[in-house]
Amino acid sequence: MNQPSHILLVSNSTVHDRGYLDHVEDEIRDLLGHARTVLFFPYALQDRDGYAAKARSRFEAMGYKMDSAHATSDPRQAIAATDAIFIGGGNTFRLLKAIQDLELIEPIRRRIREGAAYIGSSAGSNVAGPTIRTTKDMPIVQPRSFDALGLVPFQISPHYLDPDPASTHMGETQEERIVQFLEENETPVLGMREGAWVRVRNQSVILGGSNGARIFRRGETPVEAVTGDEISELVGAPDGP
Amino acid sequence: MNQPSHILLVSNSTVHDRGYLDHVEDEIRDLLGHARTVLFFPYALQDRDGYAAKARSRFEAMGYKMDSAHATSDPRQAIAATDAIFIGGGNTFRLLKAIQDLELIEPIRRRIREGAAYIGSSAGSNVAGPTIRTTKDMPIVQPRSFDALGLVPFQISPHYLDPDPASTHMGETQEERIVQFLEENETPVLGMREGAWVRVRNQSVILGGSNGARIFRRGETPVEAVTGDEISELVGAPDGP
Repeated sequence: MNQPSHILLVSNSTVHDRGYLDHVEDEIRDLLGHARTVLFFPYALQDRDGYAAKARSRFEAMGYKMDSAHATSDPRQAIAATDAIFIGGGNTFRLLKAIQDLELIEPIRRRIREGAAYIGSSAGSNVAGPTIRTTKDMPIVQPRSFDALGLVPFQISPHYLDPDPASTHMGETQEERIVQFLEENETPVLGMREGAWVRVRNQSVILGGSNGARIFRRGETPVEAVTGDEISELVGAPDGP
Repeated sequence: MNQPSHILLVSNSTVHDRGYLDHVEDEIRDLLGHARTVLFFPYALQDRDGYAAKARSRFEAMGYKMDSAHATSDPRQAIAATDAIFIGGGNTFRLLKAIQDLELIEPIRRRIREGAAYIGSSAGSNVAGPTIRTTKDMPIVQPRSFDALGLVPFQISPHYLDPDPASTHMGETQEERIVQFLEENETPVLGMREGAWVRVRNQSVILGGSNGARIFRRGETPVEAVTGDEISELVGAPDGP
């Protein structure tokens, strides 16, 4: 499989008691390398201007130049010209519907295949998978399809929460919901706890950050992954491409 | 508005430490009255046979005759002949996709308009609203549309959980998700805590059970409802039909 090369998928943009993207700043710098321009996608939140201003301020503090796709006259041209793409969190259905309606799916995929870096956080990580079928967000709007960017061949389930053994709540846990997903689908799922992220470089997938993740495969017992673990089986190995 | 008359929407089928439907048995008996036959819809779970057996056993213990739509040779004929319909919980997307694919939406709507009773639990309550846009379930399969039965003109959000002030989790609370829904939609939302249910009779909507509910309207502060409250503004009043 010809995986794109420079991908960082973050469970959540802000961890408790720290500032926006602070916990992942070093990883972003490492990912971006010599990249200078980052194109932001604010479509997961209603207040696009406010969201773009927040992201721009944060990336400028790191020394990068950031434009927001929603404020460019030609988002497709902006995608073709940028060194990197950052899709922020919010509601995954709203985000996917927007980039579908604007016909931006293929331009983003193409630019990432060409070597641009991709950063996704929360909803922005969800849409990096083949579909959004493992989001926890409410389906507040209806995208034309659940198919997403497919930058990685596994599903992301960000903000992963372990079952609480003391809970008397009868609604399904996140694990039970992912098991339901695997009743209907064969794609493996990476449940990333808050604080965790994953770096994808060609055939290599490495878990980073704190709190770890859980890997779910149809018919198999879920397995834990901790920071530094190579979890490249998610991109096809050991079963081959 | 010409509301159907005999509708019971339950947040969840089983409350902590009690048996299946025990907390709502009296309400079901009151709703069903002289009805004798109940048609069950098991499509929200993968194991339809097992689910139908569980529901049948429970309803037979109450003295009703129950068939499951999935086991009938002609579900539409079964719908037209039944005194009452019960749609059970599980995954809302799987449920809606199944009844859409089987072309059962209109037959169910028609039968309820004719006076048959409707019982929905969890996912079965979600699909009673105009759309499934306030479900918390994962979108594990893609229905052709989010439009649902529309038996009531308000959205249900079952298993409603209040924000936990002690939580350090950064994912959106259920209230925040409903606020996002109201950014995109105008339909009011009834967030029913576990143990709560709602009875709809013509223009009357009355909250029952335990733990209460929260009513969300666009641009307004959410309001609490407790057992016995008439919340008929959800069907159009006081602004008129």
